[in-house]
Amino acid sequence: MESGRPGGSGPAEPGPRLRGLRGTDAAASASSLSRFGAEAGCRAPAVAAVLPAGGSGERMGVPTPKQFCPILERPLISYTLQALERVPWIKDIIVAVTGENMETMKGIIQRYQHKRISLVEAGVTRHRSIFNGLKALAEDQPNCRLSKPEVVIIHDAVRPFVEEDVLLNVVTAAQEHGASGAIRPLVSTVISPSADSCLDHSLERARYRASEMPQAFLFDVIYEAYQQCSDYDLEFGTECLHLALKYSHIKAKLVEGSPDLWKVTYKRDLYAAESIIKERISQQVCVVMDTKEDEEHVGRCLEEMLKTELNHVKVIFGQDLQQIILEQCYNFVCVNVMTSDFEETQRLLHMLEESNLSILYPAVVISVHFLDYEPFGQKMEKVMQIREFAKEAKKGNILLFGLLIYFPQEEQKLRASLRRGATIIAALIKERSSGLIGQLLVA
Amino acid sequence: MESGRPGGSGPAEPGPRLRGLRGTDAAASASSLSRFGAEAGCRAPAVAAVLPAGGSGERMGVPTPKQFCPILERPLISYTLQALERVPWIKDIIVAVTGENMETMKGIIQRYQHKRISLVEAGVTRHRSIFNGLKALAEDQPNCRLSKPEVVIIHDAVRPFVEEDVLLNVVTAAQEHGASGAIRPLVSTVISPSADSCLDHSLERARYRASEMPQAFLFDVIYEAYQQCSDYDLEFGTECLHLALKYSHIKAKLVEGSPDLWKVTYKRDLYAAESIIKERISQQVCVVMDTKEDEEHVGRCLEEMLKTELNHVKVIFGQDLQQIILEQCYNFVCVNVMTSDFEETQRLLHMLEESNLSILYPAVVISVHFLDYEPFGQKMEKVMQIREFAKEAKKGNILLFGLLIYFPQEEQKLRASLRRGATIIAALIKERSSGLIGQLLVA
Repeated sequence: MESGRPGGSGPAEPGPRLRGLRGTDAAASASSLSRFGAEAGCRAPAVAAVLPAGGSGERMGVPTPKQFCPILERPLISYTLQALERVPWIKDIIVAVTGENMETMKGIIQRYQHKRISLVEAGVTRHRSIFNGLKALAEDQPNCRLSKPEVVIIHDAVRPFVEEDVLLNVVTAAQEHGASGAIRPLVSTVISPSADSCLDHSLERARYRASEMPQAFLFDVIYEAYQQCSDYDLEFGTECLHLALKYSHIKAKLVEGSPDLWKVTYKRDLYAAESIIKERISQQVCVVMDTKEDEEHVGRCLEEMLKTELNHVKVIFGQDLQQIILEQCYNFVCVNVMTSDFEETQRLLHMLEESNLSILYPAVVISVHFLDYEPFGQKMEKVMQIREFAKEAKKGNILLFGLLIYFPQEEQKLRASLRRGATIIAALIKERSSGLIGQLLVA
Repeated sequence: MESGRPGGSGPAEPGPRLRGLRGTDAAASASSLSRFGAEAGCRAPAVAAVLPAGGSGERMGVPTPKQFCPILERPLISYTLQALERVPWIKDIIVAVTGENMETMKGIIQRYQHKRISLVEAGVTRHRSIFNGLKALAEDQPNCRLSKPEVVIIHDAVRPFVEEDVLLNVVTAAQEHGASGAIRPLVSTVISPSADSCLDHSLERARYRASEMPQAFLFDVIYEAYQQCSDYDLEFGTECLHLALKYSHIKAKLVEGSPDLWKVTYKRDLYAAESIIKERISQQVCVVMDTKEDEEHVGRCLEEMLKTELNHVKVIFGQDLQQIILEQCYNFVCVNVMTSDFEETQRLLHMLEESNLSILYPAVVISVHFLDYEPFGQKMEKVMQIREFAKEAKKGNILLFGLLIYFPQEEQKLRASLRRGATIIAALIKERSSGLIGQLLVA
C-alpha cells in the first residue's frame, strides 16, 4: 500500500509530551543516531532543518495560504512540524514566514506545543526565504542564536507526510556527496512547447524524475551557493539542487522517495491529506468495559463485528488505559454494561482530558449503553444527558457520541444488533464528524 | 477556485435519462454543436472517443485496478464515462478493457445505464489498447460496426472530471492542426539523473509542461501513426502526441487544461476524487414542507441557519419537486410540521424512487420532526420507524436520516435549536455516511 498506509505505523508521534511518558524521546534519539553508524558507516552529524513557509498558496484558490489551511481543525504546517519534530536528531527547525503571518505562526507553535522551532522572516521568493533561514544558522551573522549545523535539511511546509527514513537517507547521502534530494517517477510525460504553443518535443518519461523534498546539504555547500548566486536565481529559481550544482559544483545524490512526499498544491490535496490523516488515526480502537464478566460474551462479540467492519484495524481491550493512551490510540468504545449512568465513560473522558492525547488529533469516544429491561423512554431521557458531556469534551478536542444497543435475550438477535452497533461505531470513527457529537445513535 | 469548484456548475449531467426529462439532450446537442461554428469558425465534425482502461493500477497498491475502484460505491470509470456521455456531440465511446474485466465492464454499463459505449479488448500496453480502439473505428477493418469519425478524442479512464470545454478545445484544435492535447504547468522541477543516480541537470520549470489528457486527433493522422509505429513504440511509449509527431509529422496544438484533469494514480487521489464528488453533489439543498403557513417562520429560520452552515450552498424551497429532481438536486430536508407521521417524507421518497435520480449518486433525505407537546418517549418510539424506511430507501441509493428538533415557544430557544438542527443537517449532507442511515438525531 503506497499511500494511505492502513498497514503503516500509525500517526507520527506528536510534539507535545504526553503526561506520564518518560524517557521515550531520549531512547528514540539514541537508537536513531546509532542508525547513522549502522547504516551509513559514518558518525551522526549536527542537523538542522529549514522550512520556507512564505507562500501565498494562490494555486489553492482560497484566501488562506495553503500552509495555514486547516485539516481536522489544525493548520497543515503543524503536521509538517510534527513530522520533523518526532525525529530527535534534528536539532533546530527554522521556519520562514512573512511578517503578516508571524503572529499566526507563534500561536500555532504555542497551541500545538511545537519544540525546537525558530522563526525568521520570509523573503519574497522561495529561494530568498531559504537563504534567510540559512543566515539564521550561519555563525558569521550578528545576533546568531543558533549553532551552525553540519548538515541542513530543506523541506516544504506543505509536505506533511515526510518519514524519518527518507530524512535519514538524504542526510546520510548529503554527508557523503555534499547534496542530496528525494525524487519520484514522473506521473505525466513532460513536453516542451514551441513559442506558438505547439509540441516541440516530448521527453522520454523513464529518463527523467520529479525533484521532490526533502533535500539535504552540507551546510557550507548550500550556504556558499546562496551567497554566490545571482539576483535572477533568487527571483526566478526554484531548485536548491541546481544552486549547489551551479555554484558549489556538487552533483547531488538522488534518493527514491515514497508517494507520501507529495506537495499539497490544490484543494483536492487538502482533501486527500485529511482522508489520509483520518485513516491513520483510525487504525486502532480500544474497547473499554466496566465489567470483566461480560467480556467473554458481549465484548468479544462486539470485537469480532468491529474487526469485520474496520478492516486492518487493531481492536484492543482497555485493561491498561494509561498505557493505551501513551501509545496514542485515538478511538475508544466505552461499554457501560453494569452502570446505567456514565461512570465508565466519565472516567475515560477524565483520563483523556488529563493526558495531552487530543492536542494534535481529535479523539473519538463512543459511550455504549444497552437497552433491555428499562422502558425505552426512560433510558433515552437519561442517556440524553450525553449532549452536555459532549459539549464539555469538545473543548478538549474529544468527540463524544452515544450508542444505544438493543439487547435481546436471543443470541441471533443479539448478534444482529451488535453488528448494527459495529457499523455505526465504524462510521463514527472513520468520519470524525464534529457536527454529530452528543448524538445518541441506536443500533 | 481551481479545484473542488464549490461555485461550479454542480455534478455532470448523468447518463441515465431522468424520467420526465424530454428534449434536453437534443437541445443541449444543438447548442453545443453550434459552438463549433461560433467559437472556431468551422463545422461540427463527427467525433468519437477512445478510452484505454486495461491498466492494473499497480501504483494504487490495491488489488482492484484503479479504474474499477469504487467512489461512493460506484466504479471510477463510470464517472469518466458519465463525463464523456453528457457531451452530446461525442457519437461513440470505445472502451478497451482486458478479457478478464469484460463482464465487470458490461455490468457497469448496464447498472449505470451508460449509452453510446462499445467495448474492445485491451492490449498489453496502453498504446496497444488505444490502437485496438482505433481499429474498431476504422472502416478498413472487417466486421466494423462503427463509423469512422473525423476526429477522435483519446482520454484516460481515470480522469473523471473532464469538462465539455476542454473537450471542445482539443477537438477544435485537432480539426485545425491535426493533433491537440491538454497541458498543465509542472508542479515539481524535472531533473535528469546520471547513471549513478546523481543529478546531471535540472530543467527550467517554466519552459516545460506536463502532458495531460484529453487529446484529440484527426482520425487519419493518429490511425496512420499507429499503423506505422514500431513494436518498441507500442511496448514502451506512452505519449500519443509523440507518435503523431514522429510518424505523421504533425505538431500538436497544446491547450491549457484545468487542474481537475489530474489522473487518479495513488490511493490519495481516490480520496480526493470522493471528496470532490461529495462536495459537488452537496451544492444544493431542497427544503420540503408539509405546510405553507409555517414557511414564513420555521422554514425561513431553518433556511437562514442552513445557509450559515453550508457556505455557498443554494437552499431552495421544494414547491415544484418534479422540476427540482430533474435539475439534479441530491439533498432534501423534509419538514413534517403538521403530520406527526411520515406522510411528507414518504411522498418524497416515492418520487425519488420513481425518478432515476439516485442511480448515479446517493441522494440524502433528512426527515425533520418537531418535539413539542407529545411526551418525548412516545414521539421517539413512533419516529423510530424511520429505520425500516431507511432500509428500504437504501436499496434505491437514497440515504434517509431522521432529525427531531426541539420546538420551544420562546423565540431565542427556538432559534438555538434550529441552529443545532442545521449543523446536523450540514454534517449529514457533507458526509453521506451510509453507516448512519435510519438514525434519529436530536437537535
